[in-house]
Amino acid sequence: MSSPKVDLDTMRHSCSHVMAQAVLDMFPEVKLGIGPTIENGFYYDFDLPRTLIPEDLPILEKKMKHIVKQSQKFKKYEEPADESIKFFKKIKQNYKVELIKDLVKDGEKKVSFYENIDNQGKGTFVDLCKGPHVEHTGQIGPFKLTSIAGAYWRGDEKRPMLQRIYGVCFPTQKELDEHLEMLEEAKKRDHRRLGIDLELFIFDNEVGAGLPLWLPKGAFVRHKIMEFAFNTYLKNGYDPVCTPHIASADLWAHSGHLDFYSDEMYGPMMIDEDEYRLKPMNCPLHVKMYLHRNRSYRELPMRWTEMGTVYRYERGGVLHGLTRVRGFTQDDAHIICTPGQLKDELSRALNLTLYILKTFGFEDFEMNVSVRDPENSEKFIGEAKDWKMAEKTLKEVLHESGFKDYEYDIGGAVFYGPKIDVKVADSLGRKWQLSTIQFDFNLPTRFGMKYIGEDGKEHTPFMIHRALLGSLERFIGVLIEHYAGAFPAWLAPAQARILPVSDQFLKYSEKVCEELKEAGLRVEVDYSSDTLGKKIRNAEMAKIPYMLVVGEKEVKEGTVAVRDYATKKQEVMKVDAFKKKVLKEVEV
Amino acid sequence: MSSPKVDLDTMRHSCSHVMAQAVLDMFPEVKLGIGPTIENGFYYDFDLPRTLIPEDLPILEKKMKHIVKQSQKFKKYEEPADESIKFFKKIKQNYKVELIKDLVKDGEKKVSFYENIDNQGKGTFVDLCKGPHVEHTGQIGPFKLTSIAGAYWRGDEKRPMLQRIYGVCFPTQKELDEHLEMLEEAKKRDHRRLGIDLELFIFDNEVGAGLPLWLPKGAFVRHKIMEFAFNTYLKNGYDPVCTPHIASADLWAHSGHLDFYSDEMYGPMMIDEDEYRLKPMNCPLHVKMYLHRNRSYRELPMRWTEMGTVYRYERGGVLHGLTRVRGFTQDDAHIICTPGQLKDELSRALNLTLYILKTFGFEDFEMNVSVRDPENSEKFIGEAKDWKMAEKTLKEVLHESGFKDYEYDIGGAVFYGPKIDVKVADSLGRKWQLSTIQFDFNLPTRFGMKYIGEDGKEHTPFMIHRALLGSLERFIGVLIEHYAGAFPAWLAPAQARILPVSDQFLKYSEKVCEELKEAGLRVEVDYSSDTLGKKIRNAEMAKIPYMLVVGEKEVKEGTVAVRDYATKKQEVMKVDAFKKKVLKEVEV
Repeated sequence: MSSPKVDLDTMRHSCSHVMAQAVLDMFPEVKLGIGPTIENGFYYDFDLPRTLIPEDLPILEKKMKHIVKQSQKFKKYEEPADESIKFFKKIKQNYKVELIKDLVKDGEKKVSFYENIDNQGKGTFVDLCKGPHVEHTGQIGPFKLTSIAGAYWRGDEKRPMLQRIYGVCFPTQKELDEHLEMLEEAKKRDHRRLGIDLELFIFDNEVGAGLPLWLPKGAFVRHKIMEFAFNTYLKNGYDPVCTPHIASADLWAHSGHLDFYSDEMYGPMMIDEDEYRLKPMNCPLHVKMYLHRNRSYRELPMRWTEMGTVYRYERGGVLHGLTRVRGFTQDDAHIICTPGQLKDELSRALNLTLYILKTFGFEDFEMNVSVRDPENSEKFIGEAKDWKMAEKTLKEVLHESGFKDYEYDIGGAVFYGPKIDVKVADSLGRKWQLSTIQFDFNLPTRFGMKYIGEDGKEHTPFMIHRALLGSLERFIGVLIEHYAGAFPAWLAPAQARILPVSDQFLKYSEKVCEELKEAGLRVEVDYSSDTLGKKIRNAEMAKIPYMLVVGEKEVKEGTVAVRDYATKKQEVMKVDAFKKKVLKEVEV
Repeated sequence: MSSPKVDLDTMRHSCSHVMAQAVLDMFPEVKLGIGPTIENGFYYDFDLPRTLIPEDLPILEKKMKHIVKQSQKFKKYEEPADESIKFFKKIKQNYKVELIKDLVKDGEKKVSFYENIDNQGKGTFVDLCKGPHVEHTGQIGPFKLTSIAGAYWRGDEKRPMLQRIYGVCFPTQKELDEHLEMLEEAKKRDHRRLGIDLELFIFDNEVGAGLPLWLPKGAFVRHKIMEFAFNTYLKNGYDPVCTPHIASADLWAHSGHLDFYSDEMYGPMMIDEDEYRLKPMNCPLHVKMYLHRNRSYRELPMRWTEMGTVYRYERGGVLHGLTRVRGFTQDDAHIICTPGQLKDELSRALNLTLYILKTFGFEDFEMNVSVRDPENSEKFIGEAKDWKMAEKTLKEVLHESGFKDYEYDIGGAVFYGPKIDVKVADSLGRKWQLSTIQFDFNLPTRFGMKYIGEDGKEHTPFMIHRALLGSLERFIGVLIEHYAGAFPAWLAPAQARILPVSDQFLKYSEKVCEELKEAGLRVEVDYSSDTLGKKIRNAEMAKIPYMLVVGEKEVKEGTVAVRDYATKKQEVMKVDAFKKKVLKEVEV
């Protein structure tokens, strides 16, 4: 149907025009907003006379298919800006008028349009647009309108709320089907839904938005992940530190956070006459500990780690389950080192990142290097030579770790230094930014951090921030979707549930339970009076890694009939063999 | 010297008069404040023409000894209040004038005095005083003036700052000597000093008063203690939960904290239009999780534990190292149970308390039961029958655990329920209140907590709060003094340090270090070029449990010369034998 030579993004953009044309056909009074492409598809914002309902989407899709079938041509032309404003005013497209006025402010004299022309040479739809577009609508591949949402005009809560229609579009039906299937699967794995179903966490209005409350099972998983990461860091030469969740405003002024980061910080609170703030980052507190006495090069590198809970303001509208919250725990660390130690430390941090992420079954990594824009050097602090050296070192480290391909974002660095961000693909292929390794040229200078070098003179150390899981809350949110809620045995709150076929096997069940518990496994017995079928369904709903069915044969032979949640296979084993199998499996 | 029949408190009170007499002799212009007895001694507050220096104390002691030797009689008499005011005005004792005016306000018409009379029948010192006193100063036992401090008149920061002299007084010289020795030892063990010397924690003005920053070694000890307690709770049928450090003011209004506890709470902070508060307690957040769905009796008892960091306001003047801070972590738990489960749960909580405390070497416990005052029942919420039952249960549980003697404090209960507080004696015999087990009749009612009973009807569960270490910060402060900074091997940041006699044994040292580390021990090598003597002194200063000296003989025989910090004994062992010994020792 579609030409394979057509650029994906161009095709999706054209598809958004076709959707707008269909909407205009359905609602002649519609006022058009904007319609850009996004990952896998596009959207378009509309000001409509009534609220859309899901049933509208198939109607629109039918109209769109009709337009595609007609192979309407995309024709580009330019007009003077003032003429165009008049034109859009006349047809009452006030959002377009506003857009052109902004272009004029930016110095544009002419604006460009794309018009769809049908096979009778008649214009069917025209939109203010820079393009490019496909030649004709026949080149648009299979598509589907996926959802409707509200969106403020220009993202501003004080402007009108428009209705946004999302769609996806692919070169082939197979790709579209696969994508839709993935979306369906993603919906099932939504961590917000699984969080409730599996009793992992809740949010509560009276407590406050974006502040998760971890129920026992969720808190257990969180504890296990934290324990694993923390112990891994200690084994890898990190030392623990621990700092309070609040500090006086003086500290945040000194660190520069009140200047550069106050929008993300919670409002002040008073203690006696002093103003305090919740910490949005742990860094200045670690710096304070470094400063408490003189330091020598012999103490470097220092690697200080803290499971530090920080609070950052997010607008209510962008909060999303665990992946976007207002309070979260970072597996934070600061590495303070000499210039000579820098590369080795970065390399260690990167390898540790990969080890940690691989432990959770992530295998597909995308590296992003964000550096400063030398054309805009006033937006970044620190010496040009330090930036150059740091950026060079980051790239070398990636190369030497086998990452020859990476995204390179000029100007994407934080104001205080360049960084590597690691994105991982989950089991559905969706990418999530998790780990970050960042340079900091700000705090060492601001706080006058020094060490006495081998030469007996004072030097300023380098400081690296790193958070490998990133935010624990976000990480667990991603993990729940990655595992579809079925945590591997080493993380699962209950690793096995024993299901007696009937009450007469309870005693044996309890004996097996005790034996496994003594070996350190987390096991429970189903004491309900349910049928075996119901017991199995309940254990599957709870996504417990192993079900141990126990009946007359098992009692006689000292075995358990093991049903594996992941493989759905069943196998009868001696209790001891099962014990050994799981103990081996949970060794991380 | 002193009569054994003399009441200790009376004798100490008399000693404070003698001190005032000596001060008056030295500074005739002195204005006298008050001079009560305290544990082991007394103090007296003075308004003096110059600041006291430590060298003043022996001079005063000499004068006091002289007065004691004279066996001056204590003579009591009463005077009309108005006459007394005139008298004190005349001799310019304005603080005494204020005290009498307050007595008059309380309805007193007469006030009593004690006058010291020397052997010529001459009055030497007179003080406004209710008494009682010893018959004569010769009955006062050995004493010592211990320190000078500033103290606001009547504890009010807006009134003048007086100078307070502290003294101790005992029936016998032996008891005084022992006490002074204990004070000397306590000074050496002061956790604020050891905290700095051993690099455990710091406080920082820019961060804020009462907010400890845990340096690596302190953070490690803190982590180990937390890990031990947390794992112990999980093994004992507790489930973990985890909640944020802030919640909206709505929650704290609902829980009653804004009514009953706001003085201890940090000021409000705004998020969008909503007011938030730092949590002073974890309870309402746990209650919220209980409420998120219907509960059945089958789920009870529920035991939810959280290492919850809370923030409570304390006046700057009362902050003291780790034992009185503004932010601390509780090893908190809430047990929610049916009436039938109550006694067993309290008994389990008490036994767990003893197990936890004994693990840290505490052996001497004092139980305190605090109940409501039935005469003042309006100060306590909940039904009389519930209080009665709860108090009875607490006492029964103590009895059955072998605590027949306990302090009983009528009216000392918290407003929401009776409690058991556990005080422990440290290695110097000083008592510290650590653990608490409390009933809560407030929250279950306020939040409408319910469960469906076996009868199919709704019931209100009982709720028990308990914190066994209490505040981790306070606990570690006590522990540092209890251990004099020498942590037992299971808690020590470094368990052993290898001291090569010279550099040629470094290779063997490293091999031993690796072997021990692989077994999970925390070992380091002294790489310095110091002499062996200096290396030993450094390891002793760092209070490392084991020093492993390594020289030619040890290399040849595959041994280490183990010096035990605690016993100061030295013993040569095979590396493997040392490994086994320590591994056995650190099993908690």
